[in-house]
Amino acid sequence: MSNTTIRVLAQKLGLSIGTVSKALRDSYEISIDTKEKVLSLARELNYVPNPYAGSLRKGKSKTIAVVLPEVADSFFSLAINGIEAVAQEKGYHVLIYLTHESFVKEINILKDFQSGRVDGILLSVSDETSNSDHVKEVIAAGVPVVFFDRICEDVDTARVITDDFESSYNATSHLIQKGCKRIAYLSISANLSISNNRMEGYKKALEDQGAGHNPCIIQCSNDMKSNKEIISELLKNKVRPDGIIASVEKLTTPVYMVCRELKLSIPSAIRVVSFTNLQTAVILNPALTTVTQPAFEMGKTAATVLFKALGKNSTILKKESVVIPSLLVERNSTD
Amino acid sequence: MSNTTIRVLAQKLGLSIGTVSKALRDSYEISIDTKEKVLSLARELNYVPNPYAGSLRKGKSKTIAVVLPEVADSFFSLAINGIEAVAQEKGYHVLIYLTHESFVKEINILKDFQSGRVDGILLSVSDETSNSDHVKEVIAAGVPVVFFDRICEDVDTARVITDDFESSYNATSHLIQKGCKRIAYLSISANLSISNNRMEGYKKALEDQGAGHNPCIIQCSNDMKSNKEIISELLKNKVRPDGIIASVEKLTTPVYMVCRELKLSIPSAIRVVSFTNLQTAVILNPALTTVTQPAFEMGKTAATVLFKALGKNSTILKKESVVIPSLLVERNSTD
Repeated sequence: MSNTTIRVLAQKLGLSIGTVSKALRDSYEISIDTKEKVLSLARELNYVPNPYAGSLRKGKSKTIAVVLPEVADSFFSLAINGIEAVAQEKGYHVLIYLTHESFVKEINILKDFQSGRVDGILLSVSDETSNSDHVKEVIAAGVPVVFFDRICEDVDTARVITDDFESSYNATSHLIQKGCKRIAYLSISANLSISNNRMEGYKKALEDQGAGHNPCIIQCSNDMKSNKEIISELLKNKVRPDGIIASVEKLTTPVYMVCRELKLSIPSAIRVVSFTNLQTAVILNPALTTVTQPAFEMGKTAATVLFKALGKNSTILKKESVVIPSLLVERNSTD
Repeated sequence: MSNTTIRVLAQKLGLSIGTVSKALRDSYEISIDTKEKVLSLARELNYVPNPYAGSLRKGKSKTIAVVLPEVADSFFSLAINGIEAVAQEKGYHVLIYLTHESFVKEINILKDFQSGRVDGILLSVSDETSNSDHVKEVIAAGVPVVFFDRICEDVDTARVITDDFESSYNATSHLIQKGCKRIAYLSISANLSISNNRMEGYKKALEDQGAGHNPCIIQCSNDMKSNKEIISELLKNKVRPDGIIASVEKLTTPVYMVCRELKLSIPSAIRVVSFTNLQTAVILNPALTTVTQPAFEMGKTAATVLFKALGKNSTILKKESVVIPSLLVERNSTD
């Protein structure tokens, strides 16, 4: 077999991997001119489609992969349960792969799938993922991918997401209505679409509802200790915030701990809302107002979309978004 | 190939799967008489060793499996991180399989490994697992297994555990020293060795330290709603407990919720300690006293033991226990 891959063809032709893949499959979306160029080069370079891809399309492995950043987060652990509920019914195995928020790890995991280990992939990308070629390549190799929660905008496939912009807008409005004048937004990644959407929802609410102050966006990390320091510095400031939006679950504990250390009472001195599905939200001191994501339902829906495709032997899914709304659950932390 | 498996040989000879496996490998632990019987029947029934087992022993898949009940539990999510830290260093893939506390699912998953998908297995059994033949079979097929946390006592292999008896004894003593006279123990499974050890530690502490009352063991389930009902009934009783030991993490939230509903103040009316690694323990209302397990270290150690075996091409590990102690972390809930 030659070493020519779809990636090589794409590079030599100056085309995207997706376009080359579609041309090779004779997709109606690709012009006849382009198809001819692609097929001609493919013959010239002795391109042979991946032999495993064929058996994959027949669904031989009876296994799907779930690729996600971590499991120490209630959203992902609940989403897995939703996925497994569907897979079990269909008689499929589920393999869980963790990227630990590493782009390189994600690339290596997806490369491995090109050889035919799994029939399909449910993917929530790492917060480092800045490019989607690895996803396009595995789709081109005949393995269908459905994104859930954290997506790559430019990959043409199905995705199951929640309304991050709207729910962040609502959380911010809620704080404004409760009287907050200086609301800080704790962010965690610049790459992720969900982060950007949540941040935009926050900014738009401030703009619309005239809280009378500029956005205050604080970049946090994945490390508990440094997050405590960042938040502590923010709250020791003379003009400290009177409202906080923690855009991911892991920021909740450091916010509460710093408030206690600085003797800032929640909610009287500062109101807090977090994006989280933590079961313990209700028994925190005080009970935490949350943007609760439909984690189980998102996992279930993503798996259903994937199995529908596997049932029809279709490996390239239409670019379509299923949006399942999140819920603002008001509790004492914003009372 | 014939359909004769090690299991068939074991059944026909009235021997255990482990004994047959060792006899076929000419282990010094097995008598010459037994070996002759096994080999004679193996020839007669045309037994052929699993062809994948050979390639497995050479470590071809560069993949290990982690089989565990669930990820919506801080112990398991942290243990996975410990396992992945070691696997990454060794250049191995980690596949995570969830049993969702189902014995049947666990059997099916392990059966799948007999065909050579992974080089080794880290296993924490489901709370339904009442028999260990499925584990013995996969070991007999040439795939080494290391238990972590939840073990099968009668399988001869390595296990990494914590001191469940001692830590439960200490938690109970702590409640007695704080003045508790009626301590209830909330249990979740009758099958698991860890549950039994924790329960025995509780009973022994009551016996030794003369709290002057009989053990009060309450059987809970995996369902949040029914657990709330069970705990509610317990705490509405006229002679209700003044101390509670929640033997697993998922019992924490219902205990706190029921106490609040019944206006039982923690710790003045009732003291609470839980077995959990919840990051939010410190920000609960009130902060929760925990038996904190060395989850990350246990995962890391279990993986290290497995990779040491893989490095030496040994598929049958010595029966040895590595015990890493848990820590009682006193907080306001038992003050």
